[in-house]
Amino acid sequence: MSDELKRGLEGVLVAESELSHVDGEVGKLVYRGYDIEDLARGASYEEVLYLLWHGSLPTREELDAFTTDLAAERPVDDDVLDTVRTLADAGERPMAALRTATSMLSAYDPDALDDDDVTATARRQGRRITAKIPTVLAAFERARQGNDPVSPDPDLSYAGNFLYMLTGTEPDAVSEETFDMALTLHADHGLNASTFTAMVIGSTMADVYSGVTGGIGALSGSLHGGANQDVMEVLHEIDNSSKDPVAWVKDARDGGRRIPGFGHRVYKVKDPRARILQEKLQDLSESSGDSKWLDYTSAIEEYLTDQGLLDKGIAPNVDFYSGSVYDSLGIPVDMYTPIFAMSRAGGWIAHMVEYQADNRLIRPRARYTGAENVEFVPVDER
Amino acid sequence: MSDELKRGLEGVLVAESELSHVDGEVGKLVYRGYDIEDLARGASYEEVLYLLWHGSLPTREELDAFTTDLAAERPVDDDVLDTVRTLADAGERPMAALRTATSMLSAYDPDALDDDDVTATARRQGRRITAKIPTVLAAFERARQGNDPVSPDPDLSYAGNFLYMLTGTEPDAVSEETFDMALTLHADHGLNASTFTAMVIGSTMADVYSGVTGGIGALSGSLHGGANQDVMEVLHEIDNSSKDPVAWVKDARDGGRRIPGFGHRVYKVKDPRARILQEKLQDLSESSGDSKWLDYTSAIEEYLTDQGLLDKGIAPNVDFYSGSVYDSLGIPVDMYTPIFAMSRAGGWIAHMVEYQADNRLIRPRARYTGAENVEFVPVDER
Repeated sequence: MSDELKRGLEGVLVAESELSHVDGEVGKLVYRGYDIEDLARGASYEEVLYLLWHGSLPTREELDAFTTDLAAERPVDDDVLDTVRTLADAGERPMAALRTATSMLSAYDPDALDDDDVTATARRQGRRITAKIPTVLAAFERARQGNDPVSPDPDLSYAGNFLYMLTGTEPDAVSEETFDMALTLHADHGLNASTFTAMVIGSTMADVYSGVTGGIGALSGSLHGGANQDVMEVLHEIDNSSKDPVAWVKDARDGGRRIPGFGHRVYKVKDPRARILQEKLQDLSESSGDSKWLDYTSAIEEYLTDQGLLDKGIAPNVDFYSGSVYDSLGIPVDMYTPIFAMSRAGGWIAHMVEYQADNRLIRPRARYTGAENVEFVPVDER
Repeated sequence: MSDELKRGLEGVLVAESELSHVDGEVGKLVYRGYDIEDLARGASYEEVLYLLWHGSLPTREELDAFTTDLAAERPVDDDVLDTVRTLADAGERPMAALRTATSMLSAYDPDALDDDDVTATARRQGRRITAKIPTVLAAFERARQGNDPVSPDPDLSYAGNFLYMLTGTEPDAVSEETFDMALTLHADHGLNASTFTAMVIGSTMADVYSGVTGGIGALSGSLHGGANQDVMEVLHEIDNSSKDPVAWVKDARDGGRRIPGFGHRVYKVKDPRARILQEKLQDLSESSGDSKWLDYTSAIEEYLTDQGLLDKGIAPNVDFYSGSVYDSLGIPVDMYTPIFAMSRAGGWIAHMVEYQADNRLIRPRARYTGAENVEFVPVDER
């Protein structure tokens, strides 16, 4: 027992994990030893979920069974959809609505109370939650627009089905592939605050519904999710200013403003996820014939690099490109963090599965710095 | 940065706190320097909430204003009550229903988005949540029994109003006082897993709705809340066995069974909260003329003490007496943990208020023990 205060637990090793590793010096992210670029380009999000939850990439047969199971779990009970509509009518924020709806899903899990096999239970609950989050989110967004929900299509991929439920139209190949990649890129990233939240909750042997609900809560905080929304707001601001993007950024920086989407606690070089999303933004631009966001972001990145930011370890991060990718896919800005949650839920669940299999209750100490031996005085004598 | 693995963060100091301190060697618990016995006997739960959230015990004037504000926040929007009824109809477990309903409350907070003053916002959200949890819980329990909810009565105390909403009848003085004491005794207890969960969530600057929702999730785990339910189940089992309680306990222990409600990670002597609840169980027994649970628990405690458990540091903890107290108040067994949450929410909120005022994102590390440099093979070649 050390008496050294570990504010923010910075640098404290709380667990061992085989799930993901970030090497910020060289800009490398791996899931179970696979380079994120290989996974993003070569594997579907379903394969990545299987890898994270089961330990290895699936064979074709395993993948088909897993995909079928996952797709079968997409429909959401009408009670939950009613509550989602009620929340949309009440003007609830998307992350808070997702938190409530995810929590509510447990009432309709027919096996919620079976906890004989901790790992099997966590995987099963995780599969259900992961399958249903897109249904809930798409229904919420459509309800806000005054539209009825679109039923999930089990023949579409996880990524394709979400875009279909959101818009009512099957996405083209480039959009589906891009969104699938974005999901893979955001699925896990070591022990960030939301992943750690899910682990702490899981360490009491609470169920996965509790862990994912807690993770959504943590991700809703302004210090965690949300940076890609900031980037998109800046891009819109530039667009509305009718200034040249580089001139706008120069003026903004001269005025002391920080440009969001640059710099990362861990990555000192360009975030590998940013590299991939930048390429997909190119593909989307070619496909749509509209290259505005690509032009803006590329020009800003080039300018800031020329200004020497990269030499200081301040490089474009994943948020710098994900915003414009999502915008190109027709996703509203305040749904970016919920989509982050939709993807990261895969990682939260993987960490709960891994941690609960060799569990230890997570319970640090606080140093008591309050008063000592205070004499109690009844209220009317105070 | 140390490479020593801190499993469960045992002994790791994550923060400083002026809120509560446990001295397990002498069986002492203080909130902001006040002995828990003084607070339980001399202050209402409302005074304790004020103490935890605002730093000092209120004057009469401050208490009156605080109590009025808190009571005014008790009503819950019909949408939330509808969802609570839906969850009861779906057979949802009480802790999960509370998790969902608490999360849903944020949609009806008219100020949910105002975050200019972090401390004021956290206190205001905390006050609303704390005021509404009893309304939600009582409505859920009544819905399970096929009864309509009872509207809160602003003229009753926090404790008295809950019992009134639960049963539809104003509680007698002993019951109200006992329940008020039980709330005070459970309001805070250092950094347990649910309190730490609320802090981790709060450290992203997420709102108090997210923190309390996460805390409920953590408390629902079998390693955290729930021990008083185990005690009560044992007492019922003894009652149904028609054996003498001491004979039953002797046989159970000979058969290798552990008696719940004894032993605590921190307390090596009798938990001060157990002492107070035992006295209140006496009062309740005298008031009702039914001393069965008092006779059983007293006999078991005496027997186990004679067997030398106390010498090994295994003493009665708070759960040993709270179960029979709640049973005497007519509260169903599976509502004990939700009531624990109702009380501990006061502590979760206090820790969020305290931590966010001098915030640092909580983000430990994991040691990566997974594979390295795995070559990617496409699915059809696996």
